Amino acid sequence: MIQIYDTTLRDGTQRKDISLSCSDKLRIAQRLDEMGVDFIEGGWPGSNPKDVEFFQEAAKIHWKHALITAFGSTCRVNGGPQDDANIQALLDSGTPVCTVFGKSWTLHVVDVLRTTLPENLRIIEQSVAYLREQGRRVIYDAEHFFDGYKENPEYTLDTLRAAVRGGAERVVLCDTNGGALPHEVSAIVSQVHQELDIPLGIHAHNDSECAVANSLAAVQAGCTQVQGTINGYGERCGNANLCSIIPDLQLKLGYECLPSVKLVELYDLSHFVAEIANLAPDEYQAYVGQAAFAHKGGVHVSAMRRSPLSYQHIEPELVGNEMSVVVSELSGKGNILSKAEEYGLAVNGSEEVVEALNQIKELESQGFSFEAAEASAMLLLKRHQPDYRAPFELIDYSVSVEHRQQRGIITEAMVKVRIGEKVIHTAGEGCGPVHALDVAMRKALVDDFPQIAQFHLTDFKVRILNGALATEAITRVLIDTQNGYHSWSTVGASPNIIDASWQALADSIEYGLMTTTEEDPAEQVAA
Amino acid sequence: MIQIYDTTLRDGTQRKDISLSCSDKLRIAQRLDEMGVDFIEGGWPGSNPKDVEFFQEAAKIHWKHALITAFGSTCRVNGGPQDDANIQALLDSGTPVCTVFGKSWTLHVVDVLRTTLPENLRIIEQSVAYLREQGRRVIYDAEHFFDGYKENPEYTLDTLRAAVRGGAERVVLCDTNGGALPHEVSAIVSQVHQELDIPLGIHAHNDSECAVANSLAAVQAGCTQVQGTINGYGERCGNANLCSIIPDLQLKLGYECLPSVKLVELYDLSHFVAEIANLAPDEYQAYVGQAAFAHKGGVHVSAMRRSPLSYQHIEPELVGNEMSVVVSELSGKGNILSKAEEYGLAVNGSEEVVEALNQIKELESQGFSFEAAEASAMLLLKRHQPDYRAPFELIDYSVSVEHRQQRGIITEAMVKVRIGEKVIHTAGEGCGPVHALDVAMRKALVDDFPQIAQFHLTDFKVRILNGALATEAITRVLIDTQNGYHSWSTVGASPNIIDASWQALADSIEYGLMTTTEEDPAEQVAA
Repeated sequence: MIQIYDTTLRDGTQRKDISLSCSDKLRIAQRLDEMGVDFIEGGWPGSNPKDVEFFQEAAKIHWKHALITAFGSTCRVNGGPQDDANIQALLDSGTPVCTVFGKSWTLHVVDVLRTTLPENLRIIEQSVAYLREQGRRVIYDAEHFFDGYKENPEYTLDTLRAAVRGGAERVVLCDTNGGALPHEVSAIVSQVHQELDIPLGIHAHNDSECAVANSLAAVQAGCTQVQGTINGYGERCGNANLCSIIPDLQLKLGYECLPSVKLVELYDLSHFVAEIANLAPDEYQAYVGQAAFAHKGGVHVSAMRRSPLSYQHIEPELVGNEMSVVVSELSGKGNILSKAEEYGLAVNGSEEVVEALNQIKELESQGFSFEAAEASAMLLLKRHQPDYRAPFELIDYSVSVEHRQQRGIITEAMVKVRIGEKVIHTAGEGCGPVHALDVAMRKALVDDFPQIAQFHLTDFKVRILNGALATEAITRVLIDTQNGYHSWSTVGASPNIIDASWQALADSIEYGLMTTTEEDPAEQVAA
Repeated sequence: MIQIYDTTLRDGTQRKDISLSCSDKLRIAQRLDEMGVDFIEGGWPGSNPKDVEFFQEAAKIHWKHALITAFGSTCRVNGGPQDDANIQALLDSGTPVCTVFGKSWTLHVVDVLRTTLPENLRIIEQSVAYLREQGRRVIYDAEHFFDGYKENPEYTLDTLRAAVRGGAERVVLCDTNGGALPHEVSAIVSQVHQELDIPLGIHAHNDSECAVANSLAAVQAGCTQVQGTINGYGERCGNANLCSIIPDLQLKLGYECLPSVKLVELYDLSHFVAEIANLAPDEYQAYVGQAAFAHKGGVHVSAMRRSPLSYQHIEPELVGNEMSVVVSELSGKGNILSKAEEYGLAVNGSEEVVEALNQIKELESQGFSFEAAEASAMLLLKRHQPDYRAPFELIDYSVSVEHRQQRGIITEAMVKVRIGEKVIHTAGEGCGPVHALDVAMRKALVDDFPQIAQFHLTDFKVRILNGALATEAITRVLIDTQNGYHSWSTVGASPNIIDASWQALADSIEYGLMTTTEEDPAEQVAA
């Protein structure tokens, strides 16, 4: 049994182009919890005020399996933990577990901390001990452990012993600069394992492109916790990629990391996190990339048909991926059906599912992505049901943004919609074009559908799909909406960002109207 | 001394989205030759007629160091090599070396080749022997070697012995399906090395995200040739990435692969190949990614200035990369100064740096983010210098998007700008509002600044910053632009997505004009 410790929300956000809002972080954390991840490091409250909000919200959530952890450094040199702002921030986060990092490498103790080797041991021990006294479980992250060990093995072991004396339940050996190679990790972890009778963890970075192999080597040498991030996001070249480590350990080395029934959601998890982070999923990623089981050559394909394992290292379904030469109509249909069940949608005939599936495939080839826009997928399925009638129909819209010297920016939108026999033509003003369209739409619809007043757009994300086509490329817009009780996500795609936004907005309203009634906005008719 | 065998032009082109012309392949091959690569596998003449052309052209070139190799399979079952079309194609390619692959795995012999185990040994031996008789050096690639070895070690060794009897100068152990893990590679290569007295090579794929580590393990266990591709391009999850393996072997394990003076060109080589293949370089790649030595946190940065090796695993200059600092709200003055140095900006007084830093912090609190928009940060610093004059000034703009039944979508923009004393008022049409603004701006500016015709928007990203404020929240837009020589990124933030896009667009053009001159768009005045 290997503990999985996810640090996507902390170390993962050190990646250059990631910036997650508090609600993004909560969505990711809840998904990780559902997957059966053991620890979720939510942030570094002492360094980042945004993380404080996350911990406040996280404290209100009932977590199914995961323990939320807060990350922070030991107390300052020449000071005590009881009046250290960073340690206080850890306590204020209210998490059951605190992860404290300290210095292992004498170079860092002397040149960066500018203190003595014994003083470093003191702050490690006392910081851990103080958090233990306050009732917290403590994991100790030994920063730069491998670099430190290569220079002065005995001192690095002393830092671990200090953490153990303080009451740390586990010490984690960190390859902070990411330069270690597997044979070194293997040898050093083995030595530490012999010296210390305490559970060990590994925290690797990918600067030598060996983060996954280093994590595996560490487990084989005695570590029982692996720290990493989804998709390997992280500073510089990234952290150890849990989307590879988990299947490597579980499918190939026989360690249990996640419940098997959850492992099949790994592909979805990877794509979900990429979507929330607003990053293009890496198609070529091991296990969970869209191309990971894609076969190009004809000979390959016929050989595959004779003997599927002849050209693939695992069955892709084990991680929720699929082989992509043979487009599996059945698995696709299965996906849609189970999704419909999940959303409580009655599906009458299998024909409408096949039609919906074909339309989804067609739209995805145009740039739509339904992975993080389940409401649009469900609407699409609904529209293939003979008894479904859309609550409104768009005739025209227009939107204008003007920037005039002295007057500033004026943004207006016009919409013309049909509700039954009635045509409504109205206009609205907003801070931006999507806001103006939203305002105009609400004006047009609110008399007939008063529950629309409860719908709030909470996020939208935009991605240009083919950079090489520059501003003429397809733009994909994802919109999140909520009504105070539920939230849903919709998608639009077009070469025009306004039109893509419009599609996602119209879906958002249509789905909201489909699933809530006028009388009781909270009741979900079909979701 | 480890031989580097590059298969970017053959196995690398199996990647889903790569298609190289003959002249692309020749350019890459010549660059690899200059780097000091030992073998360049040019293609598979028996399977791809386009590759035949490559070998014809390659035969005319004087190669400085590299040997060009042609790749192909053994002759067919129940046939001889002398009248086998594939073997003939190898000979016709005229290369000094042929690389022949054959089956190692009994599953493949029986289920895919549909022949007997002895017949497979015969075609291996005779194919190699025939090519040797025709005066070619032969490398034997043992396909699926590791999977085969795990099932029937003795038979896989027999296939290698057959190749050796035929006269192969080296046998290469291929992890064709990419599923092997380092400890297996290490054990199996060691066993083969004990059994056979012949030079060994390794050919790994990245399906377990261990291709680099597997290659290193193989070298440590006795392989003296590594096959791989630049940037790890290849089918499914890619081949072993030479851009990581070479520095891992050379800088960390003390093996010589390339002349040291060539290793410093690795960064350029990686970007050159990406450029020719028309793929965005992977910023997060080990060693050669633009973010591989990028540091985000302010504490990190000040520590780096004290002791550069405290937070980096090698000196980035060894592979031609450089340390960079991510400018963000966490930045100190050190970040800005390092950044200005990196961009070659002369900074006169520390006062202007402090002012720029304060403005960055102020703007970041409004939603800007300079982490991924260094051009905007540098413009901001520039604007605090007394001698700076902006090339143009915006007076007004407007943009409208109309969706009309029957007519579809019409998108138009108007801009009014001042250049010196002149006011230009014009309009443009586009696929979307940013495109229309871009078109109108170009029309307004191109007469005065012809180099603007070289600027191309390559990506933009949009982010809503405070979900709770819904459509009234701040929108942040990041735009990437390039001019064929350089690329730069700019940022805008506003409650209005169009205005945010406008700001990023205007910065993109202003920065482009500041750093390129009319006469020579490639010359960077300040970057």
